[in-house]
Amino acid sequence: MIRAEGGVRRALAAAVREAVRAGRLTPGTRLPSSRRLADDLGLARNTVANAYGDLVAEGWLTARGGSGTLVTDSMITRPAPGRSAAEPSAETCYDLIPGSPDLTAFPRAAWLKATRRAVAAAPDDAFGYGDPRGRPELRAALADHLARARGVYASPEHILICAGVSHGLQILSVVLAGRAARSVAVESYGLGGYRDLLAAAGLKTLPLPLDTHGTDPVPPDGTDAVLLTPAHQFPVGTTLQRDRRTAVVDWARRTGALVLEDDYDGEFQFDHRSVGALQALAPDRVVYLGTASQTLAPGLRLAWMVLPPTLTEQAVTAKGRIDSCEVSSQLTMAEFITSGAYSRHIRSARRRYRDRRNSLVTALAQQAPKVRVTGTAAGLHTVLSLPPGTEQRVLQSATRQGLKVVGLSRYRHERSRHVTADALVVGYGAPSDAMWPQALSALMQILS
Amino acid sequence: MIRAEGGVRRALAAAVREAVRAGRLTPGTRLPSSRRLADDLGLARNTVANAYGDLVAEGWLTARGGSGTLVTDSMITRPAPGRSAAEPSAETCYDLIPGSPDLTAFPRAAWLKATRRAVAAAPDDAFGYGDPRGRPELRAALADHLARARGVYASPEHILICAGVSHGLQILSVVLAGRAARSVAVESYGLGGYRDLLAAAGLKTLPLPLDTHGTDPVPPDGTDAVLLTPAHQFPVGTTLQRDRRTAVVDWARRTGALVLEDDYDGEFQFDHRSVGALQALAPDRVVYLGTASQTLAPGLRLAWMVLPPTLTEQAVTAKGRIDSCEVSSQLTMAEFITSGAYSRHIRSARRRYRDRRNSLVTALAQQAPKVRVTGTAAGLHTVLSLPPGTEQRVLQSATRQGLKVVGLSRYRHERSRHVTADALVVGYGAPSDAMWPQALSALMQILS
Repeated sequence: MIRAEGGVRRALAAAVREAVRAGRLTPGTRLPSSRRLADDLGLARNTVANAYGDLVAEGWLTARGGSGTLVTDSMITRPAPGRSAAEPSAETCYDLIPGSPDLTAFPRAAWLKATRRAVAAAPDDAFGYGDPRGRPELRAALADHLARARGVYASPEHILICAGVSHGLQILSVVLAGRAARSVAVESYGLGGYRDLLAAAGLKTLPLPLDTHGTDPVPPDGTDAVLLTPAHQFPVGTTLQRDRRTAVVDWARRTGALVLEDDYDGEFQFDHRSVGALQALAPDRVVYLGTASQTLAPGLRLAWMVLPPTLTEQAVTAKGRIDSCEVSSQLTMAEFITSGAYSRHIRSARRRYRDRRNSLVTALAQQAPKVRVTGTAAGLHTVLSLPPGTEQRVLQSATRQGLKVVGLSRYRHERSRHVTADALVVGYGAPSDAMWPQALSALMQILS
Repeated sequence: MIRAEGGVRRALAAAVREAVRAGRLTPGTRLPSSRRLADDLGLARNTVANAYGDLVAEGWLTARGGSGTLVTDSMITRPAPGRSAAEPSAETCYDLIPGSPDLTAFPRAAWLKATRRAVAAAPDDAFGYGDPRGRPELRAALADHLARARGVYASPEHILICAGVSHGLQILSVVLAGRAARSVAVESYGLGGYRDLLAAAGLKTLPLPLDTHGTDPVPPDGTDAVLLTPAHQFPVGTTLQRDRRTAVVDWARRTGALVLEDDYDGEFQFDHRSVGALQALAPDRVVYLGTASQTLAPGLRLAWMVLPPTLTEQAVTAKGRIDSCEVSSQLTMAEFITSGAYSRHIRSARRRYRDRRNSLVTALAQQAPKVRVTGTAAGLHTVLSLPPGTEQRVLQSATRQGLKVVGLSRYRHERSRHVTADALVVGYGAPSDAMWPQALSALMQILS
């Protein structure tokens, strides 16, 4: 029974996929309800429902609540790659995908010490259904830390704790929808997952122009919000300059739009005096998003938003009636910050990543002088420009070397007008100190 | 500027609220876009957008992505009570609202010991972007524990870790929408928040009949799913008997629908041999939801779903590409379970809550013999039936006594055909051992 169901379910899903690929089912086409199709084909309704469910999960179809199932509009949502494609092969040893810090450097002992203190000292009601804003101890500690480290204007009552930047963006999507927003301008290159998240909330994403100075951040009038990574553009690596920061803030004030600042790696600026957050120019118009994913570890699911006062209540309501963020990690983070351990750890991490950046730049200068490297002033990644037409060959060569790397084109917005250059986005955060020299060596091999 | 914006924004929101109350704006009516209204009234667009946002946050209006802002259909969504209404007054001392365990009894020392061990022993990659299924250590520990404690058929690969039962239901809503589902049958009395969550996902909730034996759980054919609390109906307190369990499972198999089992307090059964999970009758059709909120503490945001194998992939995809649940609490819970500490804690908690239940029943028999008490066989709450027409008076009296209690009517589905009896749902889990005698005393005063 299960095998038969499996076979029919797979065959049905395959037939739909084929029809979409061949153009017989066009984007936006509404499919019959699973009940109707089951009746028409003489199949079990459950089999059809499961096949539809699989296709929705893969991204071929999109479900709209009670309004039916449609063929996905491919301009908005790309089919997610199959999970098996994401499994690393046995030979893959070196991870140079940007986005992760060195997990061997997570300060376990210091974190445990902070946990012990924080959990022992917490009031009983800390373990109950919490205020959706998040723990007051953490919001107070962050207000202080962000002011000193990033120049953010924050008071604890306008800080909202989230389980990651994605969670924060989801909350903001709900707030934007509540304001009848329709579009969000985004950078020409950026995380596709964030674009998909906004699109799933019914918000159209408009790509901003990109020139030699970086993003031109001022969207067309009528755009409801703009999402930027001003300190260190992800992934291109440029820093948004003062005149452009002022311009986008002025635009937002004039049109009533919002600026969303993703300060994912703002603590890791190496070469220049640290550029503060854009939020400071207009706390009434800018939502500042920050995270511990790069400074500590992604697994902690610790992130925060500093909101314009007029948006705070709406964002808190959008997060929910109770705190969806685990409490002991919030209490621990508050203690970690107030004890000074967080600042100490960041300083130490900044040194280690700067040393990595240095060794990468040196190795390239010596062994692959034709490769231009940019975006090195900050962060845990950099962009290596390749000779035209070579990106695919280099990526294939990387796979053979057991190197996980990603091309710049992976991050590109489908409707961006920017002509993609062949380039790799190389993350140097993930490998351990022990693995880094070999990872670097493998990288040099595929580039020369 | 800010004051003027505040005044106009409040006035506009007040005008819309008044128009809805007076029936001049009927449910489902689409309001003009904030741009248009701002132009029409000569206001700043931002002011109107904020007023709309406030009204959406309060529940008066509902936003549908790019499709505009509508007056909320009050059959589906009730305006959320103002946050200030929820603030406890200075005089409120005793919390008898169901849903919370005794937070003073959270086993901090044992939890910290487990944290130390778990975090010290974890592999480095545990702190990275995790598998959305959740930590394998926790899924393995739960598979074992749930089999022994609740008779659940579970293997780790079909368990999904969630940040609470609400999170689990959100994930299931996405899965149901992907299967073109339109309706979910729910119990006549239950958490309004869960009904709102389903409705927000576009799923109509249909109330099930309630008789002297409890819920009649078999919905009309064509219903896509049914949400039940079989071990101890929340809040009525009945246990779903064997014949009704078999009936709903047979119905689900015949129609291809899903059964969602919320086993929120299944570990706290006092008087009878523990009734196992309904899931065991049909692991292929029942989704089992469990949580540590009642056994440990709500603040840990630890919950889990055991999924039918055919649904697992869809649910994992609906949860997201990475694990949104904090990792150290998952690792700690796995250690807490495998070390035996969880079972020891549950046994001790079961004894203390049974003692509370006993003292409540005894006090009622002696001091308020006219009050009928039901649903006492299990859990952290019970139902006290009041003489007809007395519920409101008793609730007012409770407020004067500094007692937080809730009436049964608060949980009722708007379209349930059940004639509400006057009753209180009294939670005896929340007060500390020190506070319990006084809370009980205050309760007796309002009942006699």
